[in-house]
Amino acid sequence: MPGLNIPFSNVEYERRLGLVRNDMTARGIDVLFVEDPSNMAWITGYDGWSFYVHQGVLVFLDEDPIWWGRQQDSNGAKRTVWMDDVRVTKYGDHYIQSTERHPMQDLAGLLISKGYGAKRIGVELENYYFSAKAYLTMKEELPNVEFIDATSMVNWLRAVKSDEELAFMRKAARISEKIVDGIYERVEVGMRKSDLVADIYADAIRGLDDAWGDYPAIVPLLPSGADASAPHLTWDGRTLQPDVATFFEISGCYRRYHAPLCRTIFFGKPPQYLLDAEKALSEGLEAGLEAAKAGNVAGDIARALAKPLTAAGIERGARAGYPIGISYPPDWGERTISIREVDETVLKPGMTFHFMPGLWMDGWGLEITESILIKDQGPAECLCDRPRGLFIKN
Amino acid sequence: MPGLNIPFSNVEYERRLGLVRNDMTARGIDVLFVEDPSNMAWITGYDGWSFYVHQGVLVFLDEDPIWWGRQQDSNGAKRTVWMDDVRVTKYGDHYIQSTERHPMQDLAGLLISKGYGAKRIGVELENYYFSAKAYLTMKEELPNVEFIDATSMVNWLRAVKSDEELAFMRKAARISEKIVDGIYERVEVGMRKSDLVADIYADAIRGLDDAWGDYPAIVPLLPSGADASAPHLTWDGRTLQPDVATFFEISGCYRRYHAPLCRTIFFGKPPQYLLDAEKALSEGLEAGLEAAKAGNVAGDIARALAKPLTAAGIERGARAGYPIGISYPPDWGERTISIREVDETVLKPGMTFHFMPGLWMDGWGLEITESILIKDQGPAECLCDRPRGLFIKN
Repeated sequence: MPGLNIPFSNVEYERRLGLVRNDMTARGIDVLFVEDPSNMAWITGYDGWSFYVHQGVLVFLDEDPIWWGRQQDSNGAKRTVWMDDVRVTKYGDHYIQSTERHPMQDLAGLLISKGYGAKRIGVELENYYFSAKAYLTMKEELPNVEFIDATSMVNWLRAVKSDEELAFMRKAARISEKIVDGIYERVEVGMRKSDLVADIYADAIRGLDDAWGDYPAIVPLLPSGADASAPHLTWDGRTLQPDVATFFEISGCYRRYHAPLCRTIFFGKPPQYLLDAEKALSEGLEAGLEAAKAGNVAGDIARALAKPLTAAGIERGARAGYPIGISYPPDWGERTISIREVDETVLKPGMTFHFMPGLWMDGWGLEITESILIKDQGPAECLCDRPRGLFIKN
Repeated sequence: MPGLNIPFSNVEYERRLGLVRNDMTARGIDVLFVEDPSNMAWITGYDGWSFYVHQGVLVFLDEDPIWWGRQQDSNGAKRTVWMDDVRVTKYGDHYIQSTERHPMQDLAGLLISKGYGAKRIGVELENYYFSAKAYLTMKEELPNVEFIDATSMVNWLRAVKSDEELAFMRKAARISEKIVDGIYERVEVGMRKSDLVADIYADAIRGLDDAWGDYPAIVPLLPSGADASAPHLTWDGRTLQPDVATFFEISGCYRRYHAPLCRTIFFGKPPQYLLDAEKALSEGLEAGLEAAKAGNVAGDIARALAKPLTAAGIERGARAGYPIGISYPPDWGERTISIREVDETVLKPGMTFHFMPGLWMDGWGLEITESILIKDQGPAECLCDRPRGLFIKN
C-alpha cells in the first residue's frame, strides 16, 4: 500500500511530478534517474538513512515513478512513498560492496526490461551519491543509451516552496530559535564544548510540542577564537574560553526541512575590531534583506551586503548564501543559486535562502545569519525571530 | 604549523603512509588522489565537516601528502593535519557549485604543475564524494594521464587497527554502553520517540569524563513493530507502543572512531516467535564469535551464525557484518570485507567488525549485535560489555 506516513498531500506530489515531467520534456529526457536523496524524497516521499548504498527514483513521462534500491530498504520504501507497492523494486544483497558486481547492473536490467535500452536517460553527474563507478557501469551496461546530464535539474525545481513546505520550514525555524535560546541560556566560560553540543542536540531533536525534531543535514558547528577562521571544524572536549568569540551554526529540522540560524557569542569585553565588524555586518544584512525581493537577482543581495562591509575594510571572498529546504547529509543547501555578485538568478516569491555572510578572517570569525523567504516586496521575511547582534556574556 | 590537535602519534601516521606507498608501488600508481573523508583523516589527520564540497589528499611516493580543498576550509586543514602549512593548497570560492567551472580543473592544474600530467593517478571511482562529473572533468583536463581505479585501496589498509586506534574504539565502546544503559533506564510506553532520541544524542555527545562524544556517522535508528522490518527508517514524533519490539541501532563515537551496538526492547510479553528468534540468534552470535579468530575467513563467521538460525527456520539473506573504525557520514562501515558466506578474506589479529546479524522479517525486526576485535584465538573480544538478550520491560 502507499506509505502510511507521507508528509505532503497528493496535490503537492502531483505538482512536483508535473514540474519534473515538463522539464524532462524540455530537455528531451525519456526517463530520469534521481539518486540525490533530497530529490528522491521531494518526488516520492521516501525517507530513510539508506543513501550509503546505491538507490534512486526513476521518473517516467507516462507512468508513476519507480523506487529502486537495496532489498532490505524496500520495506522502508513501501512505508514512505506515495506510489503503489508494485512501484517499489529492489536488488539483492549480493550487489552490496561487491568487487564482482555493481548495483547499476541491476538498474540497467530494469531499464532494458522497461524498454529504455536505447533511449535518453537523465542522470545527476554531479552528486554525492552517484559515483564515477556508477556512471561508468551504466555506460557499459547500456551502450545504446544517450546519457543526458541532469545535475541539479530537480534541485532547481525545488527552489520555490509551496505553502505546505513553508509550514514545515516555519516549524524548523521554531526549533532553531529554541536551540539558540538554549545556547544563550547555558553557555559559560569553562563549559566543555561537547556538553554544550549534547544540549544543542537534545533541544534540536526534542523539538516542540507540535514539531518533533529531525536530524539536521549538518552537525552543529561552534568554533572559537582562531579556530573560528575555519568554518567547518567540529567540536571537541575542550572548554569555552574567555575573551574570544565562538560562533554557532545550527539548524532545526522538521521532517527533513531546515531553517539554519547562526549567532556569535563573546565572553567578556569584545575588541573594537569585532564590534566594528558586527556593525558593518548588521548593516550589510539589513541592506541585503531589503534587496532580497522578487524581481531582483541573487547578485543584488550580495552587492547590498558588500557595500558596508567593504567600507569597513572587510573583503569576504566567499559566497553569502544558498537556497534551503528539504535536505539530507552532507549539506542542507540546495546547490543551485548562490548569493554572490555574479549570480543573475531572478528571485521569485516563495524562494528560501540561508543568507549566510560568515566572516572567517585571520584569527577570528563572526557569523550572524538569517533563513529568509522571498516575497513580492522587500525586505525578505526572516523565518526566525531572534536579535541579530553579537551576544555578549560576562 | 602542523595541526595543533592531531589525534595520533607521528609514528602512527608514518606507519599508515608507509602502507599506502607500498600499495601504490605494487599497483603502479605514481600519485594517489583520495577523496573519501575517512581515508583523508586516516592519512593526514584532517577533520572537518567540509566533505560536501570537493576536497582530497594527494599521496606521493617521494614527498609529504598535500591537502587540497576549498579556500575557507584550508584554515581547518592547517589546524588538523600533521603536514607543514605549505602542504595545504586551496581553490577559490568561485569554483563552488558553479555551472561554468569545476574544482577538478584546479586539481588538474596542480597535478600538471607537479609534473604528473602524464603519469598514473589512482582515484576512488566508487566513493560518495568522488562524483561522476569529478572523474569526467579530470579525464578531460588530464588527457595524458592513466587513471587507475583505487576504490577502497586505503580502506583495506585500515582493516587491522593499531593499538592507538583500538584505544579510541574502546572509548567509543564505553559511550555505546552508556547510550544503551540510558535507553533501558528511560524507555517506557507512551514516550515520544523523538524525546528518546534527544536523550540518546545527549548521552552520545556528552560522553564520559575521559571521552567526549563525537558525532556518529549514522544517526540513531529505532524502528518498532512492523516498521522494524525496514532497517533504515529514522525516528519521528510517534510514541512507543506496548506489545511490539523496538530495536536500537546506535554507536558511540570518539574522535571519528566507532563501536556500534544494537539491542532490542519489548514492552509486555513477547510472542513465542520472537523468543524463538532471540534464542537462535544468541546461539548464532556465540558460534560466530567462536569462529571469529585469526586464520579463519569472514565466511566462517557467517556460516557459524547461519546454522542455528537455519535450524529455527530463519533465512536472513543480508550480510551479517562489516569492518568498523574511523568514519564519516553516511556510513560507519569500512566498505571492504563483508561477513557473508562467500567472503574468503582471512581474518587477522587487530581487525574490528560490527558483527551485525539483524533480523528484518515480514512484520517484525530483531537486532542484537556486537562490535568485535579479532584475536589469535577465538572467541573474538566484544568491545562492549552488555547482556546480549532481548530486553523486556513491562
